[in-house]
Amino acid sequence: MTRFPSTPDLDLLFRPRSVAVAGASTNVDSPGHDYLEAIKRQGFSGPIYPINPKADTVAGLRAYPSLREVPGQVDLVISCVPAPAVPELVEHCGEKGVRFLHLFTGRFSETGDAEAARLEQAIARRAAELGVRILGPNGMGLYHPAGGLSFRPDLPTDRGGVAFLSQSGNNAVEVITRGNARGLAFGKVVNYGNGLDITPGELLRYLADDPETTVIGGYVEGVPDGRGFYEGLRAAAARKPVIIHKAGRTRAGARSAASHTAALAGQAELWSTVLRQAGAIEARNQDQLLDLMVGAALLRPPAGRRIAIVGGGGGRSVQSADAAEENGFEVVPLPHAVRERVRERAPMLADWVGNPVDQSILAGSGLSSNGLLELMLEGDHYDLAIANVGEDWFFGRPDAADRLKHACGRLAAIAAASTKPVAVVLGPTETRNRDHRALVDEVRDDFVARGIAVFPSVERAAFALGRLVQAAERRRA
Amino acid sequence: MTRFPSTPDLDLLFRPRSVAVAGASTNVDSPGHDYLEAIKRQGFSGPIYPINPKADTVAGLRAYPSLREVPGQVDLVISCVPAPAVPELVEHCGEKGVRFLHLFTGRFSETGDAEAARLEQAIARRAAELGVRILGPNGMGLYHPAGGLSFRPDLPTDRGGVAFLSQSGNNAVEVITRGNARGLAFGKVVNYGNGLDITPGELLRYLADDPETTVIGGYVEGVPDGRGFYEGLRAAAARKPVIIHKAGRTRAGARSAASHTAALAGQAELWSTVLRQAGAIEARNQDQLLDLMVGAALLRPPAGRRIAIVGGGGGRSVQSADAAEENGFEVVPLPHAVRERVRERAPMLADWVGNPVDQSILAGSGLSSNGLLELMLEGDHYDLAIANVGEDWFFGRPDAADRLKHACGRLAAIAAASTKPVAVVLGPTETRNRDHRALVDEVRDDFVARGIAVFPSVERAAFALGRLVQAAERRRA
Repeated sequence: MTRFPSTPDLDLLFRPRSVAVAGASTNVDSPGHDYLEAIKRQGFSGPIYPINPKADTVAGLRAYPSLREVPGQVDLVISCVPAPAVPELVEHCGEKGVRFLHLFTGRFSETGDAEAARLEQAIARRAAELGVRILGPNGMGLYHPAGGLSFRPDLPTDRGGVAFLSQSGNNAVEVITRGNARGLAFGKVVNYGNGLDITPGELLRYLADDPETTVIGGYVEGVPDGRGFYEGLRAAAARKPVIIHKAGRTRAGARSAASHTAALAGQAELWSTVLRQAGAIEARNQDQLLDLMVGAALLRPPAGRRIAIVGGGGGRSVQSADAAEENGFEVVPLPHAVRERVRERAPMLADWVGNPVDQSILAGSGLSSNGLLELMLEGDHYDLAIANVGEDWFFGRPDAADRLKHACGRLAAIAAASTKPVAVVLGPTETRNRDHRALVDEVRDDFVARGIAVFPSVERAAFALGRLVQAAERRRA
Repeated sequence: MTRFPSTPDLDLLFRPRSVAVAGASTNVDSPGHDYLEAIKRQGFSGPIYPINPKADTVAGLRAYPSLREVPGQVDLVISCVPAPAVPELVEHCGEKGVRFLHLFTGRFSETGDAEAARLEQAIARRAAELGVRILGPNGMGLYHPAGGLSFRPDLPTDRGGVAFLSQSGNNAVEVITRGNARGLAFGKVVNYGNGLDITPGELLRYLADDPETTVIGGYVEGVPDGRGFYEGLRAAAARKPVIIHKAGRTRAGARSAASHTAALAGQAELWSTVLRQAGAIEARNQDQLLDLMVGAALLRPPAGRRIAIVGGGGGRSVQSADAAEENGFEVVPLPHAVRERVRERAPMLADWVGNPVDQSILAGSGLSSNGLLELMLEGDHYDLAIANVGEDWFFGRPDAADRLKHACGRLAAIAAASTKPVAVVLGPTETRNRDHRALVDEVRDDFVARGIAVFPSVERAAFALGRLVQAAERRRA
């Protein structure tokens, strides 16, 4: 199955001209209904054919008793039929000249049952003979807003250049939902499940050359084709940032991965080495994956490691310095030139203020941490910045909402105008005060709408930035 | 200054019978107003005396031109006067027989100015001569809801047994706010600032014996009195869980810490060793600190390391297994006895389902992950459990709100009824769908109101549980 078709071959998978759903269902709580709703809501522009022998219409669309009865050409078939019905469906796909069959259908090799694994292999062989490429089985398939494709009706409709490959379906949904809330606009997302025919390696090769794709994320438990995966990874990482979350690193995780997607998961150290050698950035959990994708998609790569840090009180300053230095940054002391600029505007601060800038000593001085951030970003003293919003400080003051919005608006303007990357830290909204929660959510949404990279803690911001600097240095070397 | 008074000496600090605020201000955006509001809102039961030579009333309370004019006895004075005015205030405290002077007043040694440092030392000597104990300077002081004390008007009024010592004021506010949202009810919280007289070591000795205190958290950058701190730590950790976040670990962090609270911060490894030898649990950042405090306060210590994990789809199962094993747990395969119970109710799952329990294979089987959690907690197969809510799965289904609330209600009941600790994982509400955000917030608040420990990721839950198991094993050894 290790084939590498020239890259345009998969274009039609992501932009089919027509889609049929085999096993389409009138039950609104079933995948056979969800796919139809999902594709309709994404505004799929071609014909959609529900296949259902017992219904005239499904989800408001005219249904057909069999794939063979569908009047026009079908590029992509999504299968929700049970496993034993798949061989017949493959035959129909062959007769109909279908190019891609996505098997949402599961209960194959991932169950650990030998008979189910044999059926899976038989399907692979027959589909290859008929020229039908298979995505899956046991995967949710395709989410590609620009192509009108989605695997769940409630997913966002924004279009962008962030691609994501995921062995796990629920993980794909989590990453899309959470990533979108943090400003990631997705392009091609594939939950390839058992990876029987179309492998993550082949998908990576395709995405490497895909002009729509600017950043690639991946979640793998194991890979069906190790060499192909490595080569795909290397090809992609040479052209754009590639971030991989490898799960199933431990004995227990590998055992669980085996029953999840029939993948043989390997050891942690081996995988870290392979990823590094291929030029990919490794994430150890979903939070890191998201932070790295946000950083890669929304921030320019910094030119160096000299970091300016502002905002938050004294405690946050100390914690920020720790986080920055532990992730490889140089917390360069405030240079003389900046100090003299401070002296002009707030003389009593000039010999006290440092980097990180402790917001609590600025009160009443005439200089805010935004003001200091602007001074520090001017000239060539720093390569990048982290700005802590320090929202808890505002909540202790009168007119908290107005002050917080004003400060964040100015920070967003500074970050957007700077040629250097500026990461914003705005904490998770952990408070019992519902007004404060709503306010922080509103402010975060505003940053995100303006394309600013927001992180929930300074440690997570510093980690992501540190890895991205490392990757940029490796690419330059 | 290394004195260890017998522990009852500090009782009056936390439960003063009367409080005066020197530097009380009619400006609602000033600390001299905040302290009065904060104490009033916490329902302080004794007299509160604003000291202000120019106003008749401050914050609705009768003001006095000088501490000497106050009619009754004053146990605690909170100072918001500028540094140069403190020596006179100390004299007044002596005359008036004041027991504790909390210096919110800053701009002493933390500025790096030699003259300011000399003034600080002179104040310490004179106060000692007069028998006035000093808290601070450069610290927000006391938050103790049961004693009617608080340093900010907007902090929660719940009373509980979680003590917290913090060198940083903004860090104390963040930990109180975030901790409270996660179910921590605080007892004695102290932001001791420069720790000139009352040191964290003395406070730890006091909290070790304090019957109100069940769990102790701490945030330190450096300590004014190393040996006293170590001894306090050891005394406290022998009696209750003590979690310490040491910041200023790096060169940059230490430099920043020095200007923040005049503390000499040391090296990371040395501190880790000292904390471990003293029996404390180390947190490396605020998230870890909160997770460990939540675990210590809301969960029983597990009897062993055999962990049951349920909920979420296949991807989450694999990630959960990784997180558990990487934090020292044994992800024990589903025992025969449980498998046979599954066979009775869902025969086709019996040979497929494992630990972690993949929620996505349960659909339509008649068994939910809650059902499996109950079966796994029965008998002696497991010592503790992590339950992933897997909220994203619900959002893809009809009646998501009802189903999610029902499942979480049942999970809360199982966790509350079990003699084994059950940690719940409910993700951060990262979605652009505001209804979903509100729903997750509501469900989380319900868990918290029922005393359940909720973590925002399975990695954070596993980390906290792993460290707490380790600490429990050390205490038993």
